[in-house]
Amino acid sequence: MDNKEISQAVIGRLPRYFRYLGELKDEGIERISSQELSDIMKVTASQIRQDFNNFGGFGQQGYGYKVEYLYEEIGRILGLEKTHDLIIIGAGNLGQALANYMNFERRGFLFRGIFDQNPELYGKKIRNMEVRPMEEMESFVKQNEIDIAVLTIPKAGAVKVAERLVDNGIKGIWNFAHVDLNVPKEIQVENVHLSDSLMKLAYNINRYESESIQTPGSSL
Amino acid sequence: MDNKEISQAVIGRLPRYFRYLGELKDEGIERISSQELSDIMKVTASQIRQDFNNFGGFGQQGYGYKVEYLYEEIGRILGLEKTHDLIIIGAGNLGQALANYMNFERRGFLFRGIFDQNPELYGKKIRNMEVRPMEEMESFVKQNEIDIAVLTIPKAGAVKVAERLVDNGIKGIWNFAHVDLNVPKEIQVENVHLSDSLMKLAYNINRYESESIQTPGSSL
Repeated sequence: MDNKEISQAVIGRLPRYFRYLGELKDEGIERISSQELSDIMKVTASQIRQDFNNFGGFGQQGYGYKVEYLYEEIGRILGLEKTHDLIIIGAGNLGQALANYMNFERRGFLFRGIFDQNPELYGKKIRNMEVRPMEEMESFVKQNEIDIAVLTIPKAGAVKVAERLVDNGIKGIWNFAHVDLNVPKEIQVENVHLSDSLMKLAYNINRYESESIQTPGSSL
Repeated sequence: MDNKEISQAVIGRLPRYFRYLGELKDEGIERISSQELSDIMKVTASQIRQDFNNFGGFGQQGYGYKVEYLYEEIGRILGLEKTHDLIIIGAGNLGQALANYMNFERRGFLFRGIFDQNPELYGKKIRNMEVRPMEEMESFVKQNEIDIAVLTIPKAGAVKVAERLVDNGIKGIWNFAHVDLNVPKEIQVENVHLSDSLMKLAYNINRYESESIQTPGSSL
């Protein structure tokens, strides 16, 4: 299986499939057709089949998919059987909110430490983990073989901090800073630009309103 | 201009263009070619031209684009000249983090209130706004004509709360709850599934490692 062929759009949909299949599994549902899955997830059945075909299809169409098998396969593709050591840079509200997402642990993301440059936060316990000074970040990453860093710091410092993390062996950065990082291509970056998604929401609200005015009662 | 033709993928890229153009504008840059913009934003110049053509192209190709004009046009398309009244449901770390994103105000998102069901939080000041009990949410939304609600509550309560918001005239929901809401199509929903994006990051890390092992030194 050559994952290089698989588009980021497909990859981006896998976690959602994983989430839904986990819920179906918890509900004790054993088999589901692409049509049933389509109805629940509100994506077309053909999209689901196309997405799954990237990974060999996951079993016969006619029979429908075995939920538990599909759940485990997608989890395996996502690499959730592996664990990742994760630190959070920035112990503000966002950093603390992320540290407290308990279910990250269930997905194999081990919260190993949290860092901040504000001395008032040093030693503060966040999820049984004391906030460490930024100065300790590099040695900590190296000594503990941390592979994922979560950036929840202002854009001003983010680019430099990212470089320091990369120099010390970080493999992936989950970036909440409002700036696009410039790191070597072998470093994986997943940007979460929260204000971008809020602007998209505003656009869709405005679009809907202007269309309702132009063509009253029109359905989108 | 028929926005109905414009894909959500294009819409989803507009805020990023807006962000970059704002920075170029702040740097005093007056004109930029699609190629220069492509280099900075790391998307192909043809993608940029295609995206902009959805909105009439924004000025001659040869000359390059007028940065300030483009910035303002995209801001207008995003509806950022309009203001939106926004409340946050859930005054935990994430709700507080979002309340403190000062720059939302600059984009026309007015933080009008924050609600929680935990009595210990009632009256707590978050950005000069006292946390209100959930019981007051419906009347508050109606009386203050709130159009956007930010959901930062556990998935268990989110679906019901969303219905209550819709019944009281909310137009859009920015959903951080780990559940897909089921609201009428005229209600705009922007889901932020944080764990999905972390799983995608893990996938890309694992993929890169397995490929490096299979074909040492291969470039992606």
